[in-house]
Amino acid sequence: MRTLVVAPHPDDEVLGVGGTLLRRKAEGAKLAWLIMTSISVKTGWPEETVRRRADEIARVTELFGFDEVFMLDFPTTALDQQSVSDLVGGVSAAFKAFAPEEVFLPHPSDIHTDHRLSFDAAAGCTKWFRYPSVRRVLAYETLSETDFSMGVTPAFAPNVYVDIAPYLEGKLRAMSFYASEVGEFPFPRSYEALRALATLRGAASGFHAAEAFQLLRERS
Amino acid sequence: MRTLVVAPHPDDEVLGVGGTLLRRKAEGAKLAWLIMTSISVKTGWPEETVRRRADEIARVTELFGFDEVFMLDFPTTALDQQSVSDLVGGVSAAFKAFAPEEVFLPHPSDIHTDHRLSFDAAAGCTKWFRYPSVRRVLAYETLSETDFSMGVTPAFAPNVYVDIAPYLEGKLRAMSFYASEVGEFPFPRSYEALRALATLRGAASGFHAAEAFQLLRERS
Amino acid sequence: MRTLVVAPHPDDEVLGVGGTLLRRKAEGAKLAWLIMTSISVKTGWPEETVRRRADEIARVTELFGFDEVFMLDFPTTALDQQSVSDLVGGVSAAFKAFAPEEVFLPHPSDIHTDHRLSFDAAAGCTKWFRYPSVRRVLAYETLSETDFSMGVTPAFAPNVYVDIAPYLEGKLRAMSFYASEVGEFPFPRSYEALRALATLRGAASGFHAAEAFQLLRERS
Amino acid sequence: MRTLVVAPHPDDEVLGVGGTLLRRKAEGAKLAWLIMTSISVKTGWPEETVRRRADEIARVTELFGFDEVFMLDFPTTALDQQSVSDLVGGVSAAFKAFAPEEVFLPHPSDIHTDHRLSFDAAAGCTKWFRYPSVRRVLAYETLSETDFSMGVTPAFAPNVYVDIAPYLEGKLRAMSFYASEVGEFPFPRSYEALRALATLRGAASGFHAAEAFQLLRERS
Amino acid sequence: MRTLVVAPHPDDEVLGVGGTLLRRKAEGAKLAWLIMTSISVKTGWPEETVRRRADEIARVTELFGFDEVFMLDFPTTALDQQSVSDLVGGVSAAFKAFAPEEVFLPHPSDIHTDHRLSFDAAAGCTKWFRYPSVRRVLAYETLSETDFSMGVTPAFAPNVYVDIAPYLEGKLRAMSFYASEVGEFPFPRSYEALRALATLRGAASGFHAAEAFQLLRERS
Amino acid sequence: MRTLVVAPHPDDEVLGVGGTLLRRKAEGAKLAWLIMTSISVKTGWPEETVRRRADEIARVTELFGFDEVFMLDFPTTALDQQSVSDLVGGVSAAFKAFAPEEVFLPHPSDIHTDHRLSFDAAAGCTKWFRYPSVRRVLAYETLSETDFSMGVTPAFAPNVYVDIAPYLEGKLRAMSFYASEVGEFPFPRSYEALRALATLRGAASGFHAAEAFQLLRERS
Repeated sequence: MRTLVVAPHPDDEVLGVGGTLLRRKAEGAKLAWLIMTSISVKTGWPEETVRRRADEIARVTELFGFDEVFMLDFPTTALDQQSVSDLVGGVSAAFKAFAPEEVFLPHPSDIHTDHRLSFDAAAGCTKWFRYPSVRRVLAYETLSETDFSMGVTPAFAPNVYVDIAPYLEGKLRAMSFYASEVGEFPFPRSYEALRALATLRGAASGFHAAEAFQLLRERS
Repeated sequence: MRTLVVAPHPDDEVLGVGGTLLRRKAEGAKLAWLIMTSISVKTGWPEETVRRRADEIARVTELFGFDEVFMLDFPTTALDQQSVSDLVGGVSAAFKAFAPEEVFLPHPSDIHTDHRLSFDAAAGCTKWFRYPSVRRVLAYETLSETDFSMGVTPAFAPNVYVDIAPYLEGKLRAMSFYASEVGEFPFPRSYEALRALATLRGAASGFHAAEAFQLLRERS
Repeated sequence: MRTLVVAPHPDDEVLGVGGTLLRRKAEGAKLAWLIMTSISVKTGWPEETVRRRADEIARVTELFGFDEVFMLDFPTTALDQQSVSDLVGGVSAAFKAFAPEEVFLPHPSDIHTDHRLSFDAAAGCTKWFRYPSVRRVLAYETLSETDFSMGVTPAFAPNVYVDIAPYLEGKLRAMSFYASEVGEFPFPRSYEALRALATLRGAASGFHAAEAFQLLRERS
Repeated sequence: MRTLVVAPHPDDEVLGVGGTLLRRKAEGAKLAWLIMTSISVKTGWPEETVRRRADEIARVTELFGFDEVFMLDFPTTALDQQSVSDLVGGVSAAFKAFAPEEVFLPHPSDIHTDHRLSFDAAAGCTKWFRYPSVRRVLAYETLSETDFSMGVTPAFAPNVYVDIAPYLEGKLRAMSFYASEVGEFPFPRSYEALRALATLRGAASGFHAAEAFQLLRERS
Repeated sequence: MRTLVVAPHPDDEVLGVGGTLLRRKAEGAKLAWLIMTSISVKTGWPEETVRRRADEIARVTELFGFDEVFMLDFPTTALDQQSVSDLVGGVSAAFKAFAPEEVFLPHPSDIHTDHRLSFDAAAGCTKWFRYPSVRRVLAYETLSETDFSMGVTPAFAPNVYVDIAPYLEGKLRAMSFYASEVGEFPFPRSYEALRALATLRGAASGFHAAEAFQLLRERS
Repeated sequence: MRTLVVAPHPDDEVLGVGGTLLRRKAEGAKLAWLIMTSISVKTGWPEETVRRRADEIARVTELFGFDEVFMLDFPTTALDQQSVSDLVGGVSAAFKAFAPEEVFLPHPSDIHTDHRLSFDAAAGCTKWFRYPSVRRVLAYETLSETDFSMGVTPAFAPNVYVDIAPYLEGKLRAMSFYASEVGEFPFPRSYEALRALATLRGAASGFHAAEAFQLLRERS
């Protein structure tokens, strides 16, 4: 299996697919991480924050054992300022290079514009006649984004549940690398909320911990 | 406030609205419990089970301090064998008698037919010109029913979050009265799953524990 | 793989899943056919029609190599006259006996009431804690039913495409056993329409012929 | 043009399609009225009420100039107690007899069960290969039913607007024949509400008064 | 109560929330008006039009008794030319400054792009952990926008009805200040259409005049 | 009848509406073609490709007998880089000039951004009080776009079927002019797929070949 996750920002891959990525790796898959945005000194971020982010990405890369990391380096919270053509071009190149079979995307109803535009760009890269490697496309849920959708666009509708019981602690550990993104419960990006989501998705599917996805397209 | 909950079966009121009922009571509300179905020796249930159920209902009534309990006594898992006219008649009489302002209904996409038909019967009893007392109608979610909807009917779409932090333990205690309905996690009607749901709904709304509802209609 | 198809009437299994069943068989799967309804002399059908139908079922069973055939024998076009409890009971027994991993259901927005009620009965038999064998539930499309849905219920939304190129002729042959159900194009249950559907689903997924399904639930 | 309206109860044809029926008549159409339910002394209605209803139907028939009136005489508020087969049979016979080109149906999300079941029965009678006369099927809206839908089924979604400016007074006059059904505003079946609906639908379409419909199917 | 209305253009606040604003004021609320766009000589508008608009805003401010008016001054019909970051920044500053509890937004399916983008910008400003004051978020309907939605995005689905009978004349008076925006019926922004909408929403909720909203999120 | 089709790129008008355009012409209609985008040497296309495209447009214009061709000349795959105001301005001018009664638009859930933005721009040009000529607005389906929608936006929901049996060969011939756009089946823009779509839409409507549309708005 060749598995690729599209992350609008670093940490989305952990929040949405962390357990499944660890499981895929254990099952022998090749893993790729496509990060849409980055921060930089040039766009006004403190040098230390930029350096810390690079360090976080390195640690997460190592923990998951990503075989490829594609950094598109669009400025964060500004995907709407890019042309669709540039966004698709960046994603397309990564898809061509890695030739993924399984693709995980953020959900287009997430309240963050970067998530919606990441989805749009990547959705265009799943047509079988341009990207024949792609066999399965799924949307993941992101605590603090998917759960804040306003009910005026089609909601995240989970229909695929993956057992991540052996990998939940690894997922939480990966999250801990993004120390500045984690908050105290009831903040949604907290360990309590992450555990509760895994528990609830597990109760729906018969596992002690699970991640849920919405299947968008599969061909076999 | 006069609050009424429609429960297809005893325990739905705890699973869906337990914390909010305790909060309403603490806020001085009058509470009513409308139970659509019951079990009986005549419909083939062991005498002991029937007796135990009566005892459970008594204990739950006391814990929540229900001011009224309406038992329609339709046979359980057989609401489809009743005429709509009888179902509506039963619900209507209770609504007329109690004159609720706030009404909690099961969600019509719950996978159990009894839930769907309870919703249908009660929905017809919320028109302002027949039931002028009704000011607010909400649907609740029921672990093991709402979460097993198959994605081919409009999903439960929570938009009202109620802080139940001070009442979560009371809700779990009420659940414990239905000992035979509670199972070991990952069974959905387990304490772990109930806590996880309260945690997750809390993360979405800024409370340490919450119940979520879908507002169907409000007039003020 | 243990694969079960729920057919409201004999021929739905061919129309919706014929190619995939043949492929599963070729892949070594065990196959089960659950037929919800039947015709009988008692319910007013000519003896010859009843005999011919039995013969058709036998031939289809042999062609697909069904390992199990469950005939619930509810009268055709009258599922609404059965109790939900009886419908679920019948389906449940078959699920317990065969322990399917993959389940194919008709779509609940099909215009025929028998399809909707078959779906409802079977949907209740997919909860993991009662039917732990079930890993994947999909809805299929039935020419002359799914395509006549009126747009006031959620439409069939295909997201799973199965390559049936090597099996299309076998599927059409199976259809030919139901001679009385097949009509002249533009009748929807015609060879032209069946081929066109396979062609179109293939164009959407990169195969010379495909069947499309809507994934309802998967756990892995 | 041959136009048929399906009315669960007498007065639905006026509320939903009154203006359009008058316009069709003026345009030279043949009109048919299919009334699903009736009241009778046998089902417990006072003789005078039954007689008055017959008189109302006669006056409405005359005002609209219905060329055919099909009375299926199922007991009112009890369509759920009929078999689907009987309901479809009744509607089917009328469709065969009148051979309508344009068909108006109540909306399946109306809160009254009789409306939903009338829709279901008639929807099955619009397949081109069984009822080739049918060219256009539309759903109408009924004040006090469509506007009390609870938001958990697909809402009435108007996309066809018909200019009824010259016919609004005729529609209101037809409504006045059902004196016992009309109430004082803000009661939804009041002259004020009927006028307001015609005004609003007109504002959406550029007419001084309009009726709105949801097109379900058209073939030409 | 602290109530804020987001108006893409001046007059949306009257069309959608005029009656409710007057009622809130009468109930003692603090009111804020957030105007997304403005016209200016620089962007090509005649000086007199710009001056008249300023006068209209002043009169409307006085009539409603707005405690705060936030003018973001983005050029009208050009919100798509702003960065999302600037739009959110503008709205965010107003939310931080006023700390609203109740927020009214235009509906994202309105046909005007400015409405959709105003919604998007403001929706991001309702997360409890960034804007803890916000307790209730509702979408309003705008004659000539919401009623021209094309049925390919989720429609405005009213579930909250507010009695504005004592305030309808005040609302119409406020509208009259925008003389150039009001037209002759059947133009949608006409007094007849506004009255009809209030009448119809009233018939649905038991009031002589009402405004309807779609609740998006409530926490209590 | 005055019929206008909005084509994001040349060939969309053939794929979606080719048969119906030929039929309209045969029925005596005036036809207009509004092409949103073009290619040019300036935007990096080879001179020969640009010349060939001009030739294709000329041949298609002749085959359909378009009475008007409006070329907005926005650069292809870059509509997101235009202001909404410019897009609407271009479409608006064409609508004013041609005064169409019947309008065909691409579907907003098509996966290509140019399709979505073409829809948005044109949808704003269908309000009756600005474009009173418009009587009927329909969305068409485009093989390789509409069928690749990802199920997270409202799907194309066909409800209007037009008999194109006498015009299917003409449609395919028009497609052949765009030789570089046509591929080998199972490529979606292939003759086999186009025929299959016409066959399937015919089976749903009783014609030997049909095109299907989604009615968005009609006033009469």
